[in-house]
Amino acid sequence: QFLTGYYWALFDGHGGPEAAIIASNYLHYCIKQKLEEVVGGITEARPPMHLSGRCVCDSDPQFVEEKHIHAEDLVVGALENAFQECDEVIGQEMEATNQTGGCTALAALYFQGKLYVANAGDSRAILVLKDDIVPMSCEFTPETERQRIQHLAFLSPKLLDGEFTRFEFPRRLKGDDVGQKVLYRDYFMEGWGYKMVEKADLKYPLVHGHGKQARLLGTLAVSRGLGDHQLKVIDTNIEVKPFLSCIPKVNVFDFALHDIKEDDVLIMATDGLWDVLCNKEVAHMARSFLAENRTDPHRFSELAECLVCRARGKKRGHQWMLDDSHEASYDDISVFVIPLHNREED
Amino acid sequence: QFLTGYYWALFDGHGGPEAAIIASNYLHYCIKQKLEEVVGGITEARPPMHLSGRCVCDSDPQFVEEKHIHAEDLVVGALENAFQECDEVIGQEMEATNQTGGCTALAALYFQGKLYVANAGDSRAILVLKDDIVPMSCEFTPETERQRIQHLAFLSPKLLDGEFTRFEFPRRLKGDDVGQKVLYRDYFMEGWGYKMVEKADLKYPLVHGHGKQARLLGTLAVSRGLGDHQLKVIDTNIEVKPFLSCIPKVNVFDFALHDIKEDDVLIMATDGLWDVLCNKEVAHMARSFLAENRTDPHRFSELAECLVCRARGKKRGHQWMLDDSHEASYDDISVFVIPLHNREED
Repeated sequence: QFLTGYYWALFDGHGGPEAAIIASNYLHYCIKQKLEEVVGGITEARPPMHLSGRCVCDSDPQFVEEKHIHAEDLVVGALENAFQECDEVIGQEMEATNQTGGCTALAALYFQGKLYVANAGDSRAILVLKDDIVPMSCEFTPETERQRIQHLAFLSPKLLDGEFTRFEFPRRLKGDDVGQKVLYRDYFMEGWGYKMVEKADLKYPLVHGHGKQARLLGTLAVSRGLGDHQLKVIDTNIEVKPFLSCIPKVNVFDFALHDIKEDDVLIMATDGLWDVLCNKEVAHMARSFLAENRTDPHRFSELAECLVCRARGKKRGHQWMLDDSHEASYDDISVFVIPLHNREED
Repeated sequence: QFLTGYYWALFDGHGGPEAAIIASNYLHYCIKQKLEEVVGGITEARPPMHLSGRCVCDSDPQFVEEKHIHAEDLVVGALENAFQECDEVIGQEMEATNQTGGCTALAALYFQGKLYVANAGDSRAILVLKDDIVPMSCEFTPETERQRIQHLAFLSPKLLDGEFTRFEFPRRLKGDDVGQKVLYRDYFMEGWGYKMVEKADLKYPLVHGHGKQARLLGTLAVSRGLGDHQLKVIDTNIEVKPFLSCIPKVNVFDFALHDIKEDDVLIMATDGLWDVLCNKEVAHMARSFLAENRTDPHRFSELAECLVCRARGKKRGHQWMLDDSHEASYDDISVFVIPLHNREED
């Protein structure tokens, strides 16, 4: 008996393409392996306490029910474990071949009537439905993960080796600021306070910068992803990896609860697209393009191309510009458009 | 020049009333002090980089704007710092007087046209408006905070002193489970997986039980609150405190964005109420009680009494029962009902 799934994934490399290449060769294999390991639980609506199916306790099913554990949770767990496994494989491969670098990973799995999207990094997936836009991922950057990163430094100050401050300030402090009270945030704060500046606060901040300029340890623009096992802050012995996490967040969409229309699609793209186009703009383009090209069998890949071209803009003099005269994306841009209708046909 | 604020708070003690008593005497003082410390920033729409107001850098206002820092963020920061300060005071007082115990804390502050609700524990605040129910807090329990708690044990395994396992299982494992694959979750998992049971997995789980029975280290039913500095797991040297956090989550409601009606209220209550009545039931009772007693000047405190009576139920034989024949609340029940209309009148 076979269980069939469909898989798509985007990997956005940094510090070289090697990690992204290994990830693209291995992640689907890791996911398949992790799903196979729990297949005895996935095929039942209520997974058994023991994979063998044999109850050790009469009350086992009751405990599983109390914890609200469903087959879906095993798929989520398999994806979470697969990212960890894949990260380890990449670490070993890169060390063995003396290569460096890392990548973000955004993986979509269609399995047993549900769409699972696992994300580690700053790529994004959205569902564009007839009357709705459903975000299927959120971005992990030094800014969105500031509290997790600062908390780790609070718990293990050694990780900063005396070279960084864990506090966030609106800008890098200078000598003139010492002795003054300036705006700051510590790990436990969503709000801001004022702090009397000491000399140690002049160190480079653990998380620094704003928006696309935000950096983790002055080094990385993302806070989750695969690889980077060897990555150290330049001219120091400080490792980025414990702050950089390979753990994905998994979102689930149950097709049984929605009436999927002919032009409904899943759009997955790297930050190169989302830096210059918002969800609404992308959804608007998708809906109008697909409506105008309903008989074209290649309309989905053409829409992906069209989105890339829009984000890349047009050359005007020395600059690439969007149609609305904003600056275009200088980053690499990858886009998948995946039709959701007639899912079970082939 | 004076800034006026209004403050209400609920403290639900455990292991004796002492921590709750100290907290009720000190928290408002800590909040006042923390607000006074940043008052120079609160009175401006855009807080200055330096509390003195003197720019060290011409670009300071630009950095503050980029970080989207507003006066509201200083109030949130002041509340976060006040909880930490109050927790330290409680720790010192309790040690000096050789007392033990802790408490949850739910504090509401009306300040400059906004309502701030800071919560550490399992009490709850909701706004009951004419056409809407707005949750102003979420509960912090060993169940809702499982991943934070497990992650801390992963980072600092010494904290468990070899006596607990950080893994979650649907039930406590027994000798018969060793060598079998059973359902489990680690810190990085929202989903579930199967794990081959080893002898070490038979230890008591860090987070165990379900719903109201969930316990942190077999000891506490809440994962955030004030006090408990001396609390150790019975018969061990394991301290609960690093897992128990005093950090509140602050929610903000801006009255300028809402049209507040005559019967709109803030309801704050301990878990004794929410264990047996859901938000909708409480809102329904509040709306109908207030509509029926519109001329009664004591209707708000009478509604609070009425909610307590409803949750306590009626004695039938040896049991206290709700009107719908479910079991009533055996826990202590405290309720505040705070009218929101005509806020600026006195």
